[in-house]
Amino acid sequence: MRPIDIKNVKLTDPFWGRLQELVRTKMLPWQWRALNDEIPGAAKSWCIHNFRAAARLNEKRRTQPGFREPVFADPGFEVLPAQGEEADPDRFYGFVFQDTDLYKWLEAVAYSLSVHPDAELEAAADRAIGLIAAAQHPSGYLDTYYILNGMDAILTNLRSNHELYCMGHLIEAACAYYEATGKDALLKAARRFADYIYLRCGPDGDRPGFPGHEIAEMALARLYRLTGEARYLTLARLFLDRRGREPHYFDEEEKREAARRGQPWTPGGPRRHEYSQSHLPVREQREAVGHAVRAVYLYSGMADVAALTKDDSLYAACDALWHSITREKLYITGGIGGTSRGEAFSYPFDLPNDAAYAETCAAVGLVFFARRMLERAPDGEYADVMERALYNAVLSGMSLDGQSFFYVNPLEMSPEACRRDERLSHVAPSRQKWFGCACCPPNLARLIGSVAAYAFTEEEGALRLNLYIACEIKKAGLTVRVDTDMPWDGHVTLTFSGPAPEKLSLALRIPEWTDPAGVLLDCPAGVEKAARGSFVTLTGEWREGDRVSLTFPMPVRVLTADPRVRACRGKAAVARGPFVYCAEGGEPALCRLDTDRLSDIVPTPIEISGVPMAALTVPVKKALPGEALYSPYAPPQEAGASLTLIPYHAWANRGEQEMRVWLNT
Amino acid sequence: MRPIDIKNVKLTDPFWGRLQELVRTKMLPWQWRALNDEIPGAAKSWCIHNFRAAARLNEKRRTQPGFREPVFADPGFEVLPAQGEEADPDRFYGFVFQDTDLYKWLEAVAYSLSVHPDAELEAAADRAIGLIAAAQHPSGYLDTYYILNGMDAILTNLRSNHELYCMGHLIEAACAYYEATGKDALLKAARRFADYIYLRCGPDGDRPGFPGHEIAEMALARLYRLTGEARYLTLARLFLDRRGREPHYFDEEEKREAARRGQPWTPGGPRRHEYSQSHLPVREQREAVGHAVRAVYLYSGMADVAALTKDDSLYAACDALWHSITREKLYITGGIGGTSRGEAFSYPFDLPNDAAYAETCAAVGLVFFARRMLERAPDGEYADVMERALYNAVLSGMSLDGQSFFYVNPLEMSPEACRRDERLSHVAPSRQKWFGCACCPPNLARLIGSVAAYAFTEEEGALRLNLYIACEIKKAGLTVRVDTDMPWDGHVTLTFSGPAPEKLSLALRIPEWTDPAGVLLDCPAGVEKAARGSFVTLTGEWREGDRVSLTFPMPVRVLTADPRVRACRGKAAVARGPFVYCAEGGEPALCRLDTDRLSDIVPTPIEISGVPMAALTVPVKKALPGEALYSPYAPPQEAGASLTLIPYHAWANRGEQEMRVWLNT
Repeated sequence: MRPIDIKNVKLTDPFWGRLQELVRTKMLPWQWRALNDEIPGAAKSWCIHNFRAAARLNEKRRTQPGFREPVFADPGFEVLPAQGEEADPDRFYGFVFQDTDLYKWLEAVAYSLSVHPDAELEAAADRAIGLIAAAQHPSGYLDTYYILNGMDAILTNLRSNHELYCMGHLIEAACAYYEATGKDALLKAARRFADYIYLRCGPDGDRPGFPGHEIAEMALARLYRLTGEARYLTLARLFLDRRGREPHYFDEEEKREAARRGQPWTPGGPRRHEYSQSHLPVREQREAVGHAVRAVYLYSGMADVAALTKDDSLYAACDALWHSITREKLYITGGIGGTSRGEAFSYPFDLPNDAAYAETCAAVGLVFFARRMLERAPDGEYADVMERALYNAVLSGMSLDGQSFFYVNPLEMSPEACRRDERLSHVAPSRQKWFGCACCPPNLARLIGSVAAYAFTEEEGALRLNLYIACEIKKAGLTVRVDTDMPWDGHVTLTFSGPAPEKLSLALRIPEWTDPAGVLLDCPAGVEKAARGSFVTLTGEWREGDRVSLTFPMPVRVLTADPRVRACRGKAAVARGPFVYCAEGGEPALCRLDTDRLSDIVPTPIEISGVPMAALTVPVKKALPGEALYSPYAPPQEAGASLTLIPYHAWANRGEQEMRVWLNT
Repeated sequence: MRPIDIKNVKLTDPFWGRLQELVRTKMLPWQWRALNDEIPGAAKSWCIHNFRAAARLNEKRRTQPGFREPVFADPGFEVLPAQGEEADPDRFYGFVFQDTDLYKWLEAVAYSLSVHPDAELEAAADRAIGLIAAAQHPSGYLDTYYILNGMDAILTNLRSNHELYCMGHLIEAACAYYEATGKDALLKAARRFADYIYLRCGPDGDRPGFPGHEIAEMALARLYRLTGEARYLTLARLFLDRRGREPHYFDEEEKREAARRGQPWTPGGPRRHEYSQSHLPVREQREAVGHAVRAVYLYSGMADVAALTKDDSLYAACDALWHSITREKLYITGGIGGTSRGEAFSYPFDLPNDAAYAETCAAVGLVFFARRMLERAPDGEYADVMERALYNAVLSGMSLDGQSFFYVNPLEMSPEACRRDERLSHVAPSRQKWFGCACCPPNLARLIGSVAAYAFTEEEGALRLNLYIACEIKKAGLTVRVDTDMPWDGHVTLTFSGPAPEKLSLALRIPEWTDPAGVLLDCPAGVEKAARGSFVTLTGEWREGDRVSLTFPMPVRVLTADPRVRACRGKAAVARGPFVYCAEGGEPALCRLDTDRLSDIVPTPIEISGVPMAALTVPVKKALPGEALYSPYAPPQEAGASLTLIPYHAWANRGEQEMRVWLNT
């Protein structure tokens, strides 16, 4: 099955509708200003600056007789003007992968335009695309870092310098923009870059490497799907097949560079290639390791290529890696990346709550991976994990007003610890306006804008609802209206309309968070029901006025972790529906859940930043401070109290207060 | 009161006697080889190398007409020969404070010689002292780093370059060696250096600063006590009084250096002077902050100067700082320093078990501080903390065979975490042979060698037993023989002998770990008993054959931490007598203490590395691994099991196994 074309889905959902409007009216205009360095006080993006500089250089290439290419001078991974100095309008600044922020923004704009015309946004996007085309090197190569610093060194440091990552994001944006608007200027630029890379890195190329930061694999698969051009699939597959082979391409790159500098080459530690998931051939990888964003982007690409090439050995690796994440390395929020060292997966069951990395982009990438696994098989587990990440670790990456962002999403935060414990220097107590490395905000925008493609999967004669979002779906001659109170309550009604009866197999997910025994399903007579995995499939001829109603009990759930998760021993988390809850304020570290009174917990309405949601008030016992630091074991001195829990994604919208997901028991 | 002269104490104790023999026969000879860089495969000390080089330079000063002093070239904080290059015999190598390793070794040798003649050791020490004297600059100044790199820059970086720290350790060694042997060569060298520093840093000096790493304060107090020379006390007091005053001396130093280099000066963060405890005037300090070793060395010096100058405002600060440590920042093992960043105290109640720093030297320093507080008042709490540190966090710093050492003493160690979690890169899973920065091994040697001075305090007509160690104590005309099974059982007998009856007030500590209701005390008729603090004082005329017998119940204790200690919530530790116990092996992270069966715990004999001790077998429930990473809260799936706990100090003598002090409950 494939993701639904989002142009066929009209959202009417208060929850996701509000977020998409926020993306369209606030985040995208604001990010455009950020890309143009127009936000006072925020870290500079340099993104548009770099494209402008590259476009000017191309202008010289075309018009100035005797123009000479700049000779590469490695400015390092992040370049900033010297303190107190003006920026040079013709130099590259920012991170080596800075171009991608514009591509991600364009992709998000495309999704937004797919469902909501916006002339101003489209005009800005078209100007940006014009700039990108002007910045593209005559050869087709397109990375402003090398265009500005010297083309002689391109494709010499695939391990670290992100050229193929830039290409991947360019392709994603180009496909999305073409699908949304029918305009192909960006698609042409992306194809020219991909064709150039095929020449250099393809089967007969002189740079038979693979990306140090993955995304090109899934992007090329998408480009292949859109264009039917086999080269792109070949290249995606080569990028997978070359990983983890000896001699290791990245070692060879380093040796060449060392030789050029006349220095000896010494290899890094034995785990050095885990960071980029190139420590083993992909089909032999069983444990999710290394930089978490890279990892899930790779696994998504593996699933894409597996689907397109019907490669079961690749799927088997995807299954094992999925299992590694979901059984051993997944935060209850759907966050991944237990350690800030390398923004990476830690070892199995090492999921510290306060020192968590759980990067927003990594959760976004896990949603990518889950969607692809779900396209293969209607296994509810994929949807459960996708939903968990989406409603918790992804959305916590932005404030409710869409104007500030978390890069890191801990499950426990004490303002004092953040201020005084340098080991938590990666943890921010409140969201920031922008980042020098601003991968997360536009990644959020593009995922929110295309959420329907994750909620709904289809093929001819079949529609699958992975998530319940209020909307109207056009499917062949039918319109299916989905009415639902989700994510706050478990009632769903589907109403069918259309000029003529239409045969359709409709798969409906039974979420993990419901009580299956209490699920009520009511559908027209004559419709065939079948259970498969966590899905119920209704097959029949649907006609005007047909209704399906579904009720999922949405109990308050108290959860524990596998005892091997050291950080969660003796603790419990509270969840309801797709939301994991957290305490914010009320000194949660001193409280323990009164497990005898769990049935007392009921949802109550609350507004945070003007957004209505359901809070949970939980009975706790609050410890009184001890007299001595250590004292004989005895029933603790405690007082009855309660804690108000809020959905995790909504934390840090009410000032800096202690937060924790895992409550003592 | 004052510490007893250790020459009047003859240890007969199996526990401490074994350790002192280990120091004399293994550690001191081995450390001498380490100081001489004679241990294959171990990190180089460079210590003797540097003194030799400095002595050669002095030789040139004296004998070569026209000799010119080297001009200072700052080689940095640690200097090593370039890779693959031979060491230059005339250059300084190692850390800037490298000289102190020899001084600490000499001090430890002195204590050993005080109680056990050893001609070979004494001869080596005398040779070393000859070398030190030869290395001393004609002016009296003595720091091989500057003597070799250029005297023109001495005393320009008191904040970081440890000259006064070197002086402090030299003085400690010199006093100890003089007291042990009556030989004054080292004392003369120490006094010459102290006199030179008085000239430069004293009331009329041109360098009115104070040490960036404290110890000079307590060393000068000791030198004053030994020599009666008031200058030394004046200088100690000045070093205290100058801390935390504005303009800050270390800022002024930095400004001068920046000006010399023609660079602008920018101050560090607002907490920059906490590291060296110079953020506030000492009398205003209330919270123990910064580098933990520095801190407790300072507080020890404050207590010394308070005692010598009868300065209650200084004692008040000592009380507050003691309270800050013992109520908020002390590991149950007596370790201090919750964070590896700056090897420092963290914020109150931040006592992570796995990421603990708890440096061996910091625990040694806490013992120094506790002893001084105890000299002031017979408050059992000081002795309790001293004992806790000594029998746990100090002794865990060395292997039972005295041949390998921990710098960092965590309370929870998983070999997998140490290997795979870079956040724990400061934690070693097993002890090492030596360190480039080898402060801890000789610090252990000097403390073990002088343990009697901590166990016993005296003044005329009074003797106080803070710790119970089997020995014979000579006190005026009396000999008091102490027989005891401590630290393994709580029986103590004191037997008096002497030519004539002698009046003596004898204070005996009631340890915190006993059950006061069960203490049995039997003493001769006519002896007056009085309770003061946690001490019982027996006053009378003691004569040949008098006996006092004391029995302290030594129950197994199960302890909890103040609920504000996040890392210990829901956990308990087991202790017996002065020992804190730990689980080693048996997957303790998966177990929880069966708190219904705590009364079942009884000590059983065990041998580790051939050393007999008492183990505790505790009943636990061992969790079975979960099927899913997260599941509904329910009584855990567990199996009955037991864990064998051993005294914490004895861990890591049986290979690399998971260790933890705080057990889940």
